[in-house]
Amino acid sequence: MHSSVLARAGDPAADHDAVDDRALDRLFRTARTHNGWADRPVPEELLRQAVDLAKMGPISANTSPMRVVFVRSKQGKERLKPTLMPQNVEKTMAAPVTAIIGHDLSFYEKLPRLFPHADARAWFAGNDALIADTAFRNGALQGAYLLLALRSLGLDVGPMSGFAPAQVDAAFFAGTPIKANFLVNIGYGDPAKLFPRSPRLDFAEIAQFA
Amino acid sequence: MHSSVLARAGDPAADHDAVDDRALDRLFRTARTHNGWADRPVPEELLRQAVDLAKMGPISANTSPMRVVFVRSKQGKERLKPTLMPQNVEKTMAAPVTAIIGHDLSFYEKLPRLFPHADARAWFAGNDALIADTAFRNGALQGAYLLLALRSLGLDVGPMSGFAPAQVDAAFFAGTPIKANFLVNIGYGDPAKLFPRSPRLDFAEIAQFA
Repeated sequence: MHSSVLARAGDPAADHDAVDDRALDRLFRTARTHNGWADRPVPEELLRQAVDLAKMGPISANTSPMRVVFVRSKQGKERLKPTLMPQNVEKTMAAPVTAIIGHDLSFYEKLPRLFPHADARAWFAGNDALIADTAFRNGALQGAYLLLALRSLGLDVGPMSGFAPAQVDAAFFAGTPIKANFLVNIGYGDPAKLFPRSPRLDFAEIAQFA
Repeated sequence: MHSSVLARAGDPAADHDAVDDRALDRLFRTARTHNGWADRPVPEELLRQAVDLAKMGPISANTSPMRVVFVRSKQGKERLKPTLMPQNVEKTMAAPVTAIIGHDLSFYEKLPRLFPHADARAWFAGNDALIADTAFRNGALQGAYLLLALRSLGLDVGPMSGFAPAQVDAAFFAGTPIKANFLVNIGYGDPAKLFPRSPRLDFAEIAQFA
């Protein structure tokens, strides 16, 4: 392990609360979106740990709308297969696990328990646009926390938007108010099947100060 | 620092690629949404590092729609103030930095550079629903990566949805195709102003296997 990028003497950014370079590499810098998978099973315990980490991430009014189906059986994968865009079929069928990240449009029914300080249920009930917007935003935030939690536990991920959401909803969430948002292949990545890393925007194209 | 939760002998989940308990605490477990702020400035270098970490996180087709304004001047804070819901005014005016996390609805114009393997611009141009959906989803994912990147650098965050998006757009993104998604107060949190931690859902309420 190399020394922390933030631990240089005299660096105003030095902070003993910062995580080390190895963690930053594992989470952000050297981690890659994987397309091929080693023949190595994913312990169920890691999926459970990842969900229990992700659910602690910050969200609006503890709304907690994310719902997840970890598809790992042959039957489950066959149900998923016809919903996928052609370029996503092979890698998804080969992945040890494919998670469907969805959000529950009835999330506000749980707010009397999750956010007991106020009548938060009343902010949402009957306001379908606010419900959809809040579920999508906070479900995506929680999905991102889950991706980084999986990485933090040593797993590799390959998230995808290339599928038919209505077909996934019909196959996995029929009769429920849960809507699919994105899919994530999960396993131990095969570095031989990585694509070259794509360029990113410069800081000044992303951010400004005011 | 305590030993890694994953390094127990005989634990099938043990993995040398996992990050340590200290990082998991810092990112997820003991980190809290902060409402009060220590009188300690936020080095600009940390904000730059956080953006450069967050932009490496996985997104759909490298679409990279997130745009950020770090509001830290008195004039900037005064422009933001009238857009805030009353309960968010005091803590936001007191925070060393408030980031506006937005997404650029013209993100696809940069895809010939960001995703050169295919004509990805053509997937989006003219499809306003797909553009809005993709920008919202991937902008939120990138916003979540930024929150965890800020935490990984030792900073505390307090994200908020309680503001008038159209007013923020008018005040900070007028004449651009950028839309505000959520706000984040950034600084070194004052533990005395934390609320008690709210309960989370059980694993079985969030996730299932198929």
